[in-house]
Amino acid sequence: MPQTRLDTARIRAARRVIDPVFLDTPLYRCEALEADLGCAVSIKLETANPVRSFKARGTELVTSLLADSGSRAAVCASAGNLGQALAWSARGRGLDVTVVASRHATAAKLERIRALGARLELVDGDHELARERAAAIALHDGIRLVEDSLDVETCEGAATIGLELADSQASFDAVLIALGGGALATGVGHVMKDLAPGVEVICVQPLGAPAMTRSWRQGRVVTTEFTDTIADGVAGRRPIPAVLDDLLAVADDAVLVREASIVAGMRLLLDRAGLVVEPSAALGVAALLEDRARFAGRHVVTIVCGSNVDKDAYGRWVGPDGR
Amino acid sequence: MPQTRLDTARIRAARRVIDPVFLDTPLYRCEALEADLGCAVSIKLETANPVRSFKARGTELVTSLLADSGSRAAVCASAGNLGQALAWSARGRGLDVTVVASRHATAAKLERIRALGARLELVDGDHELARERAAAIALHDGIRLVEDSLDVETCEGAATIGLELADSQASFDAVLIALGGGALATGVGHVMKDLAPGVEVICVQPLGAPAMTRSWRQGRVVTTEFTDTIADGVAGRRPIPAVLDDLLAVADDAVLVREASIVAGMRLLLDRAGLVVEPSAALGVAALLEDRARFAGRHVVTIVCGSNVDKDAYGRWVGPDGR
Repeated sequence: MPQTRLDTARIRAARRVIDPVFLDTPLYRCEALEADLGCAVSIKLETANPVRSFKARGTELVTSLLADSGSRAAVCASAGNLGQALAWSARGRGLDVTVVASRHATAAKLERIRALGARLELVDGDHELARERAAAIALHDGIRLVEDSLDVETCEGAATIGLELADSQASFDAVLIALGGGALATGVGHVMKDLAPGVEVICVQPLGAPAMTRSWRQGRVVTTEFTDTIADGVAGRRPIPAVLDDLLAVADDAVLVREASIVAGMRLLLDRAGLVVEPSAALGVAALLEDRARFAGRHVVTIVCGSNVDKDAYGRWVGPDGR
Repeated sequence: MPQTRLDTARIRAARRVIDPVFLDTPLYRCEALEADLGCAVSIKLETANPVRSFKARGTELVTSLLADSGSRAAVCASAGNLGQALAWSARGRGLDVTVVASRHATAAKLERIRALGARLELVDGDHELARERAAAIALHDGIRLVEDSLDVETCEGAATIGLELADSQASFDAVLIALGGGALATGVGHVMKDLAPGVEVICVQPLGAPAMTRSWRQGRVVTTEFTDTIADGVAGRRPIPAVLDDLLAVADDAVLVREASIVAGMRLLLDRAGLVVEPSAALGVAALLEDRARFAGRHVVTIVCGSNVDKDAYGRWVGPDGR
């Protein structure tokens, strides 16, 4: 078993806690994409659920433990998907949730967080400022701070996707994983290294938000001054050391892709696969587009991790003119 | 058990024959739709699979039986989804497939049928002419004619969706089912009447292709001279008597919806749920839009049965101007 904070037996046990509506998501070969990508492509689809992203796999664990311990409230910083998922999971367990987000976050995500009954606090700054503010609220109110990727439950939840990949009948050569804070990459990566070590674990991040990839390449935390990407779900600047350590143990590669490739990936998933995806969910296809030679003739699976987009922005990205 | 050609035990057994990639599809509450629709709405999503429609549940059964009996070939008429599904199922079992379709069928569907290795024959006419031509080929070549809705396997395959609805923890008040030839409606309807008789079974057809609905209302086969609808998947003119008999035994209602409502339904599913759907798959939402009072406060499930659209037509339908 790879040396990370995760444990495959605990991840298997997590499946019993997570609402089944988030488990056993579609996994299918999508041949209509293959002419454009030059390799066999399977989709792991994490968007057909009540929050349209994989994040509830983790928040189901977090809130279950909170409820069991008698807690009444929690706070998190979120680009939008974690907040939605935490709000959904908390509502069913009678927990009060505060979500701190950037004022510039995707409006559709903020709207759904409010609709799910969470208190939403906006900060004039980016995701890192939201993290600071959430930590301050937790300290002040004496409530649980849910920290994406640092809290092992968020990684274990994401890791259940890895179990579903490893337990499937399909034999993949590589799995392409969106890299942001690292919960998805370390979770899925841990399981693949444990149960299907022959599968290459490839993390994909935007060139405009490269902090974790640079950190992985240098083997130490590298921060950046700013981010510049439409992939809001992965736009962090300050990698968490413990998460980087896990990533170093499980990732075979981490690649950076251009914004134009992310947009091209979104358009391809729409036109060929009929899938609406948010930018972070197109990172895998973007990586395939940027390095066809590397993947030629291989079978890759890409995790389509979310579909929460603002209608107008999405229309601009995938429309005839693109961005 | 309702008096139809179907048998719930046989439908349960069918699950063991159908490739799991087509089974246990997402079923989830979609609250983001509910403000617009005024009722609780769950989605049963049949698009996240290799053929982007529910039809392979039936063709898996058909081709399995054909292969077991030593057959080498089959022919069907199709608006596109059955043909794609039959081609997919046949390819894995070494069967040759001919699909007969209208020259005016959705181009994306025809392209996928060819890509899956089937022989495609186009007729200058509508789906009913394609049915006649397919029957002639079957007779001439001495091969199996696969007739959607008439062949009980196509209904049994569709009926496995009903099992998944009935076996779920959710309690629905009504299920909305696209009505065309009748396989989906009679299949799902049979299971609901057998296992969840309190659930209202409501079939939805376009006003521009009303033959089966009129037949159900009058209790006898009523044909029409032409169809005029964008919902190509349900645009039949000549209901099959045996299928009508089954529909009379299981449907609580059959309603007709306007083209504008179908378009509004497609747009709502895109904007609120992030789902690309073909017109037939928006019929349920169209019915909700047309009769909010009927469904107010109830919990309905709508089967999103397919997502094969031509890119340009879809863009016109859901674009700012609509149709």
